[in-house]
Amino acid sequence: MKEDRKNTAAEILKAARQLFYEKSYEAASTREISARVGISKAALYHHFRNKEEILFRICLEAADELVDNMRRAIARNVASGKPLKEQLTDILIEYLRTYLKNENFNKILFHDMEYLPEDKRRIILDKEKENVHQLRAFLISLMDQGAIRRINPTVMTFSLISSLHWLYFWYNPKGPLSLEDVAQEIADLFLHGMLAR
Amino acid sequence: MKEDRKNTAAEILKAARQLFYEKSYEAASTREISARVGISKAALYHHFRNKEEILFRICLEAADELVDNMRRAIARNVASGKPLKEQLTDILIEYLRTYLKNENFNKILFHDMEYLPEDKRRIILDKEKENVHQLRAFLISLMDQGAIRRINPTVMTFSLISSLHWLYFWYNPKGPLSLEDVAQEIADLFLHGMLAR
Repeated sequence: MKEDRKNTAAEILKAARQLFYEKSYEAASTREISARVGISKAALYHHFRNKEEILFRICLEAADELVDNMRRAIARNVASGKPLKEQLTDILIEYLRTYLKNENFNKILFHDMEYLPEDKRRIILDKEKENVHQLRAFLISLMDQGAIRRINPTVMTFSLISSLHWLYFWYNPKGPLSLEDVAQEIADLFLHGMLAR
Repeated sequence: MKEDRKNTAAEILKAARQLFYEKSYEAASTREISARVGISKAALYHHFRNKEEILFRICLEAADELVDNMRRAIARNVASGKPLKEQLTDILIEYLRTYLKNENFNKILFHDMEYLPEDKRRIILDKEKENVHQLRAFLISLMDQGAIRRINPTVMTFSLISSLHWLYFWYNPKGPLSLEDVAQEIADLFLHGMLAR
């Protein structure tokens, strides 16, 4: 029974994410969401107080997943003792996979997060900060070890994250570059720079 | 007289940009825009057919300015014969200045451009493509000269542009880093890479 409840909630979130993506949070109704799941509107309200709570849960799950996956990817690579390039590539691939997996999240994030009340929006923004913070801490530890140069760590962290986030606008999964190709190229660019030797 | 007309139109665009930024395109009315300028609603409609035309003109002006400034910055630097690092830094600074000068444009772009009809949105997106295209062409010419490495030029172009665009989310003009500092650090990072020698 409890498992059923959880599955229905997950299905509601999935349908809502798709619907918010297709027609925006504002235009989507809980009636449409429940219709997609094949349940009554009353059943939907059994799981979520209102549409705003659904939006909050969508944002929270995507933000949590990114923070958790990145934390694990950093820890796994630090422990591996592999060459730095392999470590960074692995971390970038993890980032890209998590980020692009929740592709519609980006549009929802940019367009719809403003509909959340201040306190809930704050929780999501804090998760994003945590994501930035742990990557920045990893880069600073590499600087302290002398593995990478002392470039302003904030600039470095945001440049890396920006290159990954912005993929949403230009990367075509059906194009010639696989996700792994892109991660390899980005890691190569950031590690070795543009200049010819 | 003609000059007056032009000034009023510019003032309307400026007030609208500020208002769209503060309360979103949807929530702002032409009545409020005209009140800010200190003209009647009828006078506003003398200059613009409707609110949508105002939004389109705001997007078009910002996109045009970026494309034009970047074209000039690239041409000026190619002609200068200066060291590549100075060229790239100068181009990045130009990009950042233009981009951050139209700061509210970013929010309008992400949130409000969807309110433009398909044909007008296409015109703005084509300008953005032109912006990407001319930077990419510049980078490819540097690859052809052997000045920079043959990393996938699309990945390189978008990584650079992303690092600049995303500044909007994290850069605080009142913080310790000036715009020039940030441009220097980004240029250094992209040219020389993260790795210690």
